[in-house]
Amino acid sequence: MKFTKMHGLGNDFVVVQWEGEVSAQIHGLAEAVCDRHFGIGADGLVLILPSDKADFKMRIFNADGQESQQCGNAIRCVTKYFLERIRQSTSEVDTCTVETSIGVQQVWPKIRNGLVKEVTVDMGAPILIPAKIPLRSTLSRVINQPITVGQQQFDFTAISMGNPHLVIEVEDVQHFPVDKWGPLLEKHDYYPEKTNVEFITIQNRNELTMRVWERGVGITLACGSGACAALVAAVLLEKADRSAVIHLPKGDLQIEWREENDHVYMTGAAESVFDGVWQQ
Amino acid sequence: MKFTKMHGLGNDFVVVQWEGEVSAQIHGLAEAVCDRHFGIGADGLVLILPSDKADFKMRIFNADGQESQQCGNAIRCVTKYFLERIRQSTSEVDTCTVETSIGVQQVWPKIRNGLVKEVTVDMGAPILIPAKIPLRSTLSRVINQPITVGQQQFDFTAISMGNPHLVIEVEDVQHFPVDKWGPLLEKHDYYPEKTNVEFITIQNRNELTMRVWERGVGITLACGSGACAALVAAVLLEKADRSAVIHLPKGDLQIEWREENDHVYMTGAAESVFDGVWQQ
Repeated sequence: MKFTKMHGLGNDFVVVQWEGEVSAQIHGLAEAVCDRHFGIGADGLVLILPSDKADFKMRIFNADGQESQQCGNAIRCVTKYFLERIRQSTSEVDTCTVETSIGVQQVWPKIRNGLVKEVTVDMGAPILIPAKIPLRSTLSRVINQPITVGQQQFDFTAISMGNPHLVIEVEDVQHFPVDKWGPLLEKHDYYPEKTNVEFITIQNRNELTMRVWERGVGITLACGSGACAALVAAVLLEKADRSAVIHLPKGDLQIEWREENDHVYMTGAAESVFDGVWQQ
Repeated sequence: MKFTKMHGLGNDFVVVQWEGEVSAQIHGLAEAVCDRHFGIGADGLVLILPSDKADFKMRIFNADGQESQQCGNAIRCVTKYFLERIRQSTSEVDTCTVETSIGVQQVWPKIRNGLVKEVTVDMGAPILIPAKIPLRSTLSRVINQPITVGQQQFDFTAISMGNPHLVIEVEDVQHFPVDKWGPLLEKHDYYPEKTNVEFITIQNRNELTMRVWERGVGITLACGSGACAALVAAVLLEKADRSAVIHLPKGDLQIEWREENDHVYMTGAAESVFDGVWQQ
């Protein structure tokens, strides 16, 4: 199986231009491929497939084998892959479209020297209605509400960016024990399908620092949809403007939540690391 | 740069058939290549080079960029690589020789269907003289002697298998906090060049379980020279016979310390995972 290893801010993927049907064995393949000692090693396996609704289709399977509904870092990587390797022409591209499990998304590549360096992704409108996140709550929106795990109470904001997020503001995210609270919050009763967990510290109205516990994965270096959820939460808390830089452990994402259409736009880097042929 | 990703019991390596000189930049290359999110991801970068003393020469650079003196898992992998890809004939091979930084080592492949499945490695004689390990001690051999870190005392045995080892018997190695004590023991004053640290539980005279804190790497799933040191320590403690299975987190190694020549022989699996071309 031919593949390309790519990453967006260290959130890394095995990208495969997939031929034929995607069978039920894909879950086991994703687990095997993502294993960092016995496989190729990645946060997820991403398939690029033909689409009759968009320029191409992507499907993401996490290291636990489960399909992911959304990943902003992966979509930047596959956009780079598609333009450089499948369309093989990046000179006149202004925008293209990607079919994902949550619908067609539009992306805008930033091209330098014929290579895709950054990609802006329309991540869609944030969903705040609990039933649609999904989240068990009688409130109409869950902003800065208490949540208790292991006898510790936090205040959280619940957002879906196509996948569920639980955002908590903390004083010093750099030293916050993400590995302690992340797994407990991920599986909290409030979230029937579990959740991604973002811990954020707000430096000023245009600058946030974030660390993520990703559902089914654990600590990841970056999570695009999580960065979007983080900005939306900070705006809802009235502590940030609608456009801000999100500092992640290995780089920055620029996030903008546009008032005109309620959509969130994410801009960040995408990189290819190596091409390979898997022997199993 | 073309490479093959290989592993021995999950101790994984980027193997490169190296052309030309090895410059000082190799240390930075090893660090970059071994990074599991931004690079290829491995415990070490292993170079295969021509040799005028043996069938081929190997050099290993750990994830921190430093050259390693010895690695029993890597030598099994490069033997497989050499026989299958360079010599391209495994049908009549009984033995071959590998030049390493500590001398020429002899290896015996076990071949099935033209592929190298297991390799037995002559790991040489264990070194017990403190100055040669190197270890700061006035004793002639350090067997079951006290060592204190963080106000905790352990009893340790010091052995070199070409690289330094510190072996500690614990009651239940499966639940022992290797990540807590490993880094403190690695840097203990006794070892001027730091050390690998092996925690072992002895099931019976022919069966040990081991977990390793590898110098410059951290917790690794397997360490061939560490398994040799573990058996030697168990024999010196008079708790094991000279031949035993060592259970590691992802598989077994068979270790034999032969009385006839004082050498330690290690037999274990070697596997290829994928071939790749690195883009940097």
